[in-house]
Amino acid sequence: MKIAITGKGGVGKTTLASLLSHLYAAEGRRVIAVDADPDANLASALGIPRDKAEKIRPISDMAELIEERTGAKPGTMGSIFRLNPRVDDLPEGIGYRLDGITLLIMGKSKAAASGCYCPENVLLRRLIRHLIVERDEVIIVDMEAGIEHLTRGTAESVDAFIVVVEPGQRSMQTAKAVREMARDLGVKKVFVVANKLRGPEDLDFIKNNIGDMELIGSLKFNHGIMEADIRGSAPFDYSPETVDEVRDLKNRIEKYFYP
Amino acid sequence: MKIAITGKGGVGKTTLASLLSHLYAAEGRRVIAVDADPDANLASALGIPRDKAEKIRPISDMAELIEERTGAKPGTMGSIFRLNPRVDDLPEGIGYRLDGITLLIMGKSKAAASGCYCPENVLLRRLIRHLIVERDEVIIVDMEAGIEHLTRGTAESVDAFIVVVEPGQRSMQTAKAVREMARDLGVKKVFVVANKLRGPEDLDFIKNNIGDMELIGSLKFNHGIMEADIRGSAPFDYSPETVDEVRDLKNRIEKYFYP
Repeated sequence: MKIAITGKGGVGKTTLASLLSHLYAAEGRRVIAVDADPDANLASALGIPRDKAEKIRPISDMAELIEERTGAKPGTMGSIFRLNPRVDDLPEGIGYRLDGITLLIMGKSKAAASGCYCPENVLLRRLIRHLIVERDEVIIVDMEAGIEHLTRGTAESVDAFIVVVEPGQRSMQTAKAVREMARDLGVKKVFVVANKLRGPEDLDFIKNNIGDMELIGSLKFNHGIMEADIRGSAPFDYSPETVDEVRDLKNRIEKYFYP
Repeated sequence: MKIAITGKGGVGKTTLASLLSHLYAAEGRRVIAVDADPDANLASALGIPRDKAEKIRPISDMAELIEERTGAKPGTMGSIFRLNPRVDDLPEGIGYRLDGITLLIMGKSKAAASGCYCPENVLLRRLIRHLIVERDEVIIVDMEAGIEHLTRGTAESVDAFIVVVEPGQRSMQTAKAVREMARDLGVKKVFVVANKLRGPEDLDFIKNNIGDMELIGSLKFNHGIMEADIRGSAPFDYSPETVDEVRDLKNRIEKYFYP
């Protein structure tokens, strides 16, 4: 199962990606968590200490390794670059392992004015497509904020998008844009997760604004998430109520895919 | 004065950009507010009704007009494209006017998998550089979340970055990346605005983590901002406490530039 988590900036994508990763791993499933945002912070949300996180080799550095295997020349990634089947074993060799989760980081900050992240996105798109998952394996991709990854088609091969929203029109606008483009990309399912709910009226607002998208879970507003971020701790270890809520939505996703 | 507002997704960039724009305009200054995020929502935060916001022509559509004036061919923007001096009058002709603010929108969502926003960013970079501001004019650019705009150099010609942070290590990491790259871009000043403060310990956390960046203002956690977003209203009309706090930080910015 391949899932991409998307939405407006700050709605809670990375928190949700970290909690789903830990919950699946706790069940003994093999999890590949992908941080697709160059302003990467999934490592921190998973609870990886900063000194270790800084040493993780980003996917963008894999170009050289992949060149060894495929013969593709650097600079040709956008057009004639191909990943051969042996890319399937790359995550184990490259990613950072933590409690049954393999974390892949797309890229870190580069030099100022050194260019866009298009090559990294092309590489990631092909990697996500070529990763073959068994039934007990889960790939969770924490997308960059906003919609550019959709115009780039980075996550076009996932089974579902989860779009996180919060009470407010701005994140709903992003959700609608995600849904439109997901359909055009051929991604069949877009789930909505309602986050930062302060009461039933917030949930009503979201239900009234998601159109025909399916609400798969709702998470209460929780200052514990901010506390975890202040301490650099994993929300998984620090916010038990939110963990329970995410477990419920995970079970609903399971029922959808394996009824 | 040209200011770019930046930071991790969801920290409050758009809210701050809208409040600064309204405050400067209320003083009778000419304000050009630029929404540089393709997942645009500055129009909503400024209080422009959705039906009108949807009709605003984005900067990305200006390519044709600029071609008329410069002879630059579409598709050549990244390399030999030039804006001639007459670009200075474009905002008045193209932007949406509201209460003394001219709003420019970089781009709207394009078709899925239609490509990146690199051409739009190149166009915007040149536009920001070529806009000549008088002392009483203010350009406020609401950047996209994260750091890709810095590797693209979109806002390289601004006088200052304001990086918005919230209590938490993740937004501090983004702030540090912004500061590093701002220096490399030649942007001399990076101000920090601390947002979503729940008490003095949150402010202490931020002060202890910003290194040598200058804290220019702090904004208390305010559910009224979320309420404004739910109603599609401008925080300027809906959150008087936050407006007062932003007025204070605006005055401090003024003192820095015109001591």
